[in-house]
Amino acid sequence: MASSINSAVSREEQAKFSPEPDQKYSFLDDYSEGAHPQLLQALVASNQFQASGYSRDIYSDEARRYMRRHLGCQNAGVFFVPSGTAANAISIAACLRPYESVIAAMSAHIITREAGAIEARGHKIHNVPSADGKLTPAMIKKAVTENWHYPHMARPRLVYISNATEYGTVYTKTELQAIRVLCTEHDLLLFVDGARIGMALTSPSNDLTLSDMLRLTDIFWIGGTKNGALLGEAIVVNAVRHPRLAADFEFYIKQNGGLLAKNRIIGVQFAELFRENLFFDLARAANDAAERLSRCVVAAGFELHATTQTNQVFAILPMYVVRRLQEHFLFYVWEMLDKDRAVVRLLTSWATDPEEMGKFAAIVTKCSTLGKL
Amino acid sequence: MASSINSAVSREEQAKFSPEPDQKYSFLDDYSEGAHPQLLQALVASNQFQASGYSRDIYSDEARRYMRRHLGCQNAGVFFVPSGTAANAISIAACLRPYESVIAAMSAHIITREAGAIEARGHKIHNVPSADGKLTPAMIKKAVTENWHYPHMARPRLVYISNATEYGTVYTKTELQAIRVLCTEHDLLLFVDGARIGMALTSPSNDLTLSDMLRLTDIFWIGGTKNGALLGEAIVVNAVRHPRLAADFEFYIKQNGGLLAKNRIIGVQFAELFRENLFFDLARAANDAAERLSRCVVAAGFELHATTQTNQVFAILPMYVVRRLQEHFLFYVWEMLDKDRAVVRLLTSWATDPEEMGKFAAIVTKCSTLGKL
Amino acid sequence: MASSINSAVSREEQAKFSPEPDQKYSFLDDYSEGAHPQLLQALVASNQFQASGYSRDIYSDEARRYMRRHLGCQNAGVFFVPSGTAANAISIAACLRPYESVIAAMSAHIITREAGAIEARGHKIHNVPSADGKLTPAMIKKAVTENWHYPHMARPRLVYISNATEYGTVYTKTELQAIRVLCTEHDLLLFVDGARIGMALTSPSNDLTLSDMLRLTDIFWIGGTKNGALLGEAIVVNAVRHPRLAADFEFYIKQNGGLLAKNRIIGVQFAELFRENLFFDLARAANDAAERLSRCVVAAGFELHATTQTNQVFAILPMYVVRRLQEHFLFYVWEMLDKDRAVVRLLTSWATDPEEMGKFAAIVTKCSTLGKL
Amino acid sequence: MASSINSAVSREEQAKFSPEPDQKYSFLDDYSEGAHPQLLQALVASNQFQASGYSRDIYSDEARRYMRRHLGCQNAGVFFVPSGTAANAISIAACLRPYESVIAAMSAHIITREAGAIEARGHKIHNVPSADGKLTPAMIKKAVTENWHYPHMARPRLVYISNATEYGTVYTKTELQAIRVLCTEHDLLLFVDGARIGMALTSPSNDLTLSDMLRLTDIFWIGGTKNGALLGEAIVVNAVRHPRLAADFEFYIKQNGGLLAKNRIIGVQFAELFRENLFFDLARAANDAAERLSRCVVAAGFELHATTQTNQVFAILPMYVVRRLQEHFLFYVWEMLDKDRAVVRLLTSWATDPEEMGKFAAIVTKCSTLGKL
Repeated sequence: MASSINSAVSREEQAKFSPEPDQKYSFLDDYSEGAHPQLLQALVASNQFQASGYSRDIYSDEARRYMRRHLGCQNAGVFFVPSGTAANAISIAACLRPYESVIAAMSAHIITREAGAIEARGHKIHNVPSADGKLTPAMIKKAVTENWHYPHMARPRLVYISNATEYGTVYTKTELQAIRVLCTEHDLLLFVDGARIGMALTSPSNDLTLSDMLRLTDIFWIGGTKNGALLGEAIVVNAVRHPRLAADFEFYIKQNGGLLAKNRIIGVQFAELFRENLFFDLARAANDAAERLSRCVVAAGFELHATTQTNQVFAILPMYVVRRLQEHFLFYVWEMLDKDRAVVRLLTSWATDPEEMGKFAAIVTKCSTLGKL
Repeated sequence: MASSINSAVSREEQAKFSPEPDQKYSFLDDYSEGAHPQLLQALVASNQFQASGYSRDIYSDEARRYMRRHLGCQNAGVFFVPSGTAANAISIAACLRPYESVIAAMSAHIITREAGAIEARGHKIHNVPSADGKLTPAMIKKAVTENWHYPHMARPRLVYISNATEYGTVYTKTELQAIRVLCTEHDLLLFVDGARIGMALTSPSNDLTLSDMLRLTDIFWIGGTKNGALLGEAIVVNAVRHPRLAADFEFYIKQNGGLLAKNRIIGVQFAELFRENLFFDLARAANDAAERLSRCVVAAGFELHATTQTNQVFAILPMYVVRRLQEHFLFYVWEMLDKDRAVVRLLTSWATDPEEMGKFAAIVTKCSTLGKL
Repeated sequence: MASSINSAVSREEQAKFSPEPDQKYSFLDDYSEGAHPQLLQALVASNQFQASGYSRDIYSDEARRYMRRHLGCQNAGVFFVPSGTAANAISIAACLRPYESVIAAMSAHIITREAGAIEARGHKIHNVPSADGKLTPAMIKKAVTENWHYPHMARPRLVYISNATEYGTVYTKTELQAIRVLCTEHDLLLFVDGARIGMALTSPSNDLTLSDMLRLTDIFWIGGTKNGALLGEAIVVNAVRHPRLAADFEFYIKQNGGLLAKNRIIGVQFAELFRENLFFDLARAANDAAERLSRCVVAAGFELHATTQTNQVFAILPMYVVRRLQEHFLFYVWEMLDKDRAVVRLLTSWATDPEEMGKFAAIVTKCSTLGKL
Repeated sequence: MASSINSAVSREEQAKFSPEPDQKYSFLDDYSEGAHPQLLQALVASNQFQASGYSRDIYSDEARRYMRRHLGCQNAGVFFVPSGTAANAISIAACLRPYESVIAAMSAHIITREAGAIEARGHKIHNVPSADGKLTPAMIKKAVTENWHYPHMARPRLVYISNATEYGTVYTKTELQAIRVLCTEHDLLLFVDGARIGMALTSPSNDLTLSDMLRLTDIFWIGGTKNGALLGEAIVVNAVRHPRLAADFEFYIKQNGGLLAKNRIIGVQFAELFRENLFFDLARAANDAAERLSRCVVAAGFELHATTQTNQVFAILPMYVVRRLQEHFLFYVWEMLDKDRAVVRLLTSWATDPEEMGKFAAIVTKCSTLGKL
């Protein structure tokens, strides 16, 4: 995928295709829905009881217990924050000294969509070109090698990857292990943005587990907002490798305004997600919906811009199809390939409505037939 | 009240009296409860609909509309953040240039309980002694006068007050107007931490309205967490006086991880709180509960450390009473006056259980009788 | 010039060719020398008098007066700082709100050689590819256009260019005017790193004056360290356009540790540099030396990697020539083109020794003859 | 001394007595002079040679060698920065994680005169009242004890003291050892601002050596600016105790704009100061001058506000004496005791002119006689 995550489409053109908050069904993102009903019920059930403040409550404790079971480690540090930007900014700042920097793909969410939150906490990010949103050991090594001139250059210390990536691609165990080896060799910390880690770990392309994530990384987070929760992300610190980081982690959360007085609201939801396997079931449903949309695009004779690995579909559609779809749906026009063809991004979630998918398929199929006339 | 908000009781002594998360009824704080049922119902009702992300949803819009009606200004900037520390840190950082500083009472929450969040964003706080948690124009003027030596001293630019204060005291309209005049004279911004503004504006001592708050300040916030919501505070920017601050405010929220993807969760709750007068009704209930506890303390022959103006009771109790109460209740021992007498802090909320208050009154009364024997 | 300013040569290879602090004559940089004798004499002459502290002394005043005459503006803000990194970091931080970002070429000194000083003050830098170290309006416009998604993206607010650039190239008046127009259209501030502005303004390719620099930019700085002074850079703020920035600028300097108690040490030197035209004479001498080295390289039948516009020579030399030169001189091997040929960087200054240049020419010429055999 | 280091005298009153940059002899501060002639000569002598950049030059090496001899430790980390504010800000930021805070006396230079430089790097300072500018173990322990509520409070981690203090007082070995013991017990780092450490270590009240300073602290700095140099302070890191801090220290200096390209200018001067004992000789001369001024004040029947321990004299003088002195001298009126009597601050240095001291004595003596009439 050659295009930038920052679409080359101009601001004016963006505006033309950008969504209005109306009654159209939205494939814009995976956070348009409320909470999964089971989480909401648990929230209602918990509401009448007093609970301790600031993540010391029994619901947050329960969530940590269930998550540690899934992580296969009773000593993992598990910390809750309200948003993905908070998760990234707090985690990275907690790991680094002021002169230490981050290596990330140019498409990284921390580079493109967090308003400079990492830099606001003092850290440089080395921008690494990557066609599919993934980093390889060679890319990381190049960034380290080029930033050799101390103390004139910030010292690369942390590798940021996202799984799934901003392009919806995922890492295999072999790939992640290779990055881990390189990080260890170069004294680099490995951090994974897991806004869509549920979708990654349930992708057909995946062979990693939550337990692998803990073992192979220094710190990563598990996104709730995009996978069934109303809000909340859980940062997992490898406390065996980094006991002091884990011991002091709450200071960072508090200082950055991320420690909720009534953290039960996050605790309750993560307890439900990880009590059994709901977290994975929801993510799998999102992936399945994306797969279904992808198949109908291809069946109608159109191309995908990239293979669909998780819940993001990048489809190449003629503009007349785009316009027809826009009469009923909201989605992003990601990039104009030429004046007649666009890449559109369609996001699905655990809650994507099968009926709306049917409607989408019908329009695409019909357009396809029309287009051939 | 001569004691510091940072109690002089040593860490070891604190530990002795500090609460355990058990079954005892808690007067520790005003955030032990869940949400008010009406808010929770609204949350449930909204759950099945898709909504736009990042505070662009119809629920947040609705909340802003209701709040602006209460504020008496259609142009007030209203912004939601998940926590009080976020509200303070983001608001203050948004107002100041790097060399500008804050004037605050020594008991200010930003000095005593926010892990250095203001300094973490680069700003010095001038600590002003205050016996009751309130600032006066004379105190502010002294701080300005003493910090005259530019550019060697940071330039005071923002006055932080809390209403209600950390001691539960409130400002009158006359007092706030006097501070406003002084601020205008010295080109100072006036900011109010409103974590308990509901309790302040419904205090028997109060003669201010939300509309006065907007008119007399540059920026302030309305606390939801301590007054019926599961989370959320609403920052109000005087956009007439400060259009650019309001226009760019969301950048600060985003960069600090406070912009929720599903902000509907806060929007729904504030819409309920301000649709009619629920926000004020809940706060008044909290104040009434505190008044009831205070009366029973006095009736039993014990003293209050300060007049109860809002939902915080500071009572002077013999240690044998404290110990008896601790068998059934959780609360903070705020300060040891001598080895036999302590100041205890009791917090009430909209949800404080009348039955538990009755139990409390019974113990205090009984102790009183015993004590006289 | 296709190569990165961060040479692709690996750290290990760098080490092999990197200089030792020995008796060899150095073309490594333009800050190996002491002060120009005239500056040193003035420093000695001033030494016996008491002078006011913190840039209020008569020497700093005198320097400002002379500089304003050269700038053609009595109201220009002129501020002294001890180093180039201080000049860049302080200037940029003084201009920006926390969520505002910088647009710069990938080769920019602030990206490659300042240890993350801009990010340490909270600001993101958008990295723009540029073959010769210069920015064009089109490049800037692209960066602005791509960063449209507020408040999720930091807002580009300041354009950083260096003149001369890190590659030794310079801007023409037409080029700078075009950037100015674009900046004005998009509400961007234009900032120029003038570490080598003397060399730029005396380059054969130049048609700009100091007065143009003031008129066309919002803020820029005039480098002393690389042009005759022992230390010191002078930041020039367009106070007519930005009165508040100028009025408060010293706070930034003080807060960043750049305000010297005995600023006379910088003031005296800048007074000498700008009393008449010494600043320009020294820069021209540095350029002339580079021109002389360039000619001897070409005369010997070797190529330049880029046309020499200021005091940086990038020459393509066979490794056997490089090795022969390394026996007598220190300089950077900038990049390996293949295993037999390298780009070397040679820096000259006002103090470059004509005799050493002669020796250099002799070796190159002799090698050339040998190479042909 | 009961008064604040931020004199209670109002800004307007300050202006009335504040100095004009004229021909009057100045007792305002100890940085009005140029360099000691021996340092200047060394600077001139070094000027003609090429030297490596960024503190890698032979002069800086020589200075470090001499200083380590005085420190009695070949492994001490010695780093040069251009100013005292840089020394404090860089040292403290290098030691602390974002949520760690500083304990300092209210009169501390970092609180009163550095434009919020510590907070600008993210750190809270706990303000401790102290009558004479010194901290005691009890004061420090109280600050630690009061800041117990983690993670809601920043964690005290570094104790800042100055020696000599801002009031000119000094620490004895017994006092410093007691602080060291307490710091070790509470896992606190001990940092000493040595802007006037020369004067402290040559005070009649002193029994500490440079070697003691290294042994008893974690990091401290040796001020050159106020003791014979044109600029420059040397930060000494206890590298045995803190190897990583020392190894990475230059990153902090660079990132904060304090690493001079031609650091020889500082290196040459410190080499002279510590080649033999010039540093101590100059400081002793400053102390002697203060002692002489103090004696003449007392001899004339006036009181000192505090015993003179170093080069700061705080004298209580009637306003008619103050006014008479102001006809010939510049100095600060520190505080008005009542409308007729002021505390004035007189600073001396290695360069204080004996003749001017004689003139001062004559006026004071004459006034005294007149006053008695």
